Amino acid sequence: MSGFVSFVSSGPGDPELLTLKAVARLQAADAILFDDLSSGPILAHARPDADLVSVGKRAGRPSPRQDSISRLLVEYAMTGARVVRLKSGDSGIFGRLEEELIALDAAGIGYEIIPGVPSACAAAAAAGIPLTRRLTARRVQFVTGHDITGDLPEELNVTALADPTATTVVFMGRRTFPKLAALLFAAGLPGETPALLAEAVSRPAQRLLRTTVAELAGMLATHASSAPALILYGALGNQPEGGRP
Amino acid sequence: MSGFVSFVSSGPGDPELLTLKAVARLQAADAILFDDLSSGPILAHARPDADLVSVGKRAGRPSPRQDSISRLLVEYAMTGARVVRLKSGDSGIFGRLEEELIALDAAGIGYEIIPGVPSACAAAAAAGIPLTRRLTARRVQFVTGHDITGDLPEELNVTALADPTATTVVFMGRRTFPKLAALLFAAGLPGETPALLAEAVSRPAQRLLRTTVAELAGMLATHASSAPALILYGALGNQPEGGRP
Repeated sequence: MSGFVSFVSSGPGDPELLTLKAVARLQAADAILFDDLSSGPILAHARPDADLVSVGKRAGRPSPRQDSISRLLVEYAMTGARVVRLKSGDSGIFGRLEEELIALDAAGIGYEIIPGVPSACAAAAAAGIPLTRRLTARRVQFVTGHDITGDLPEELNVTALADPTATTVVFMGRRTFPKLAALLFAAGLPGETPALLAEAVSRPAQRLLRTTVAELAGMLATHASSAPALILYGALGNQPEGGRP
Repeated sequence: MSGFVSFVSSGPGDPELLTLKAVARLQAADAILFDDLSSGPILAHARPDADLVSVGKRAGRPSPRQDSISRLLVEYAMTGARVVRLKSGDSGIFGRLEEELIALDAAGIGYEIIPGVPSACAAAAAAGIPLTRRLTARRVQFVTGHDITGDLPEELNVTALADPTATTVVFMGRRTFPKLAALLFAAGLPGETPALLAEAVSRPAQRLLRTTVAELAGMLATHASSAPALILYGALGNQPEGGRP
C-alpha cells in the first residue's frame, strides 16, 4: 500500500475560489502539505485528525529546500496515506510542480493534479480586465520575475514581453520590475503602456493599483516591499472602474 | 432596481471543477445565460424556477451575434433580476467578455467577474504537464488560432510563438494549426517540439494525444474535425505517463 498524492490547486486565496473537487480532496486527506501560512480558511476543510504540515516560508526562518519537500511528500505517501499537496493559484503555474512529480514517479507513487484558479485570472477579474480582447489582445502570457538566485531571469524573450498587443502577467516580479521595464523600453514598449499592480488578490487585504509601466517601474525602484504581488501590463483597456473591486 | 450580473466562469466542463462561489451564484440566480449545450451538469445547480437561456451555438443553426447576446444580457438585468452569465473556462480568456462589460457599463448595470479554472490548466493537469518548469519553461502563453473570419489571425507575434522554451496553448486552433505550424517552422521551431492535442478536457469523452508539432500539423491537415480542442506545444517535458489521465 503506497498511498496516493493529490496535487490540489487552492486558487488565489479566497476560500470561495476553491473548486468542489479541491474541497473533496481536502476533506478526505490524511495529511496536507501546504506552503502558505495564509491558507487558514482553506485548511478549515481538513478533517480534525489530519496531519497539517507547513513546508513553506516562515517569517525569519529559511524555507525548506525543494528536495526536502519532495522527500517529505514521498515519505508521507509511503505510509499509505491519502496525501494532499496544496499549492496556491493553479499548481501548474510557477508552483515547482515538476520537481515533486519527478520524485513521485521515481518512487512509483500514483498522483493526480487538480487544476485551480490562477491568481492572474483572479487579479484580472477583480480589476474588470479581460485577459484577452478580441481585436487588441489575442495573446496572454505569464512570466516569472525572478530566477533561482532571485534576480531577473537571464534568458528572457524580450521581443515576446515587449509586445504591447499582448497581456502580460509577471509573477513574483515586484523587486525586479524596474530592471525588466528598462529592457522593455529598450525593445520599444511605450512607457505609458497600462499596468496594474495587484496585491493579496482575492483576500481581504486586496489592493489594486492602475498605473502605467513607467510609473510603476519608478515607484517600485524607490519603494521596496516584500509583499507578494502580480504585475499586469499591456492591452489592459480603459475600463475606468471595472466591475466591483 | 436595475439588477446585477455575475460573470461566472464554469471551468473546463467537469462540474467538480466549479468553484464554491460559482455554485453559490448559480443557486441564487433568477436567470442564467449560457453558451454551451454541454453545460447540463453545471446547470443542475440552478433553482427550478430560474430562466435558463441558451445563447450559444446549436447544431445546424447560426449562433446569435455578440451584440444580440449583450443586448439580451442588459434586458434581463434591467428587469431587476440576479443574472448569471456563464462562460466556459475562465471568462477572461477568449470569452468575448469585453463586449459584454462595455454593454453593461453603458447601461449603468453593476457586475462582478468570478474567475475560474482555464481549460488550458485542466488540459495540462490531466496530462501531467506543468505549464511552467523552473529551468526550462519560464513563460506560458495562450493564443487563439482564429480571428473573427475563422482564419489564423494576421498579426501574430511569430517570434513569441516559435520560442521552444515557452509553453504555448492554442485555443480554437485545430483547423488553422497546419498554417500556424508552417510559420513556426519558418521562424526556427523544431518539428520535433513536443505537442499535445487535448479534446473534451475534463469531460467523460476526454482524449489526450502526445505527439510533436510536425506530426500534429500533418495529422490535422488531413483529418478535419470540428470537435473543440486545445493544442499545447513547447517545453512539455518527457513525463511518459504523467499522472492518471
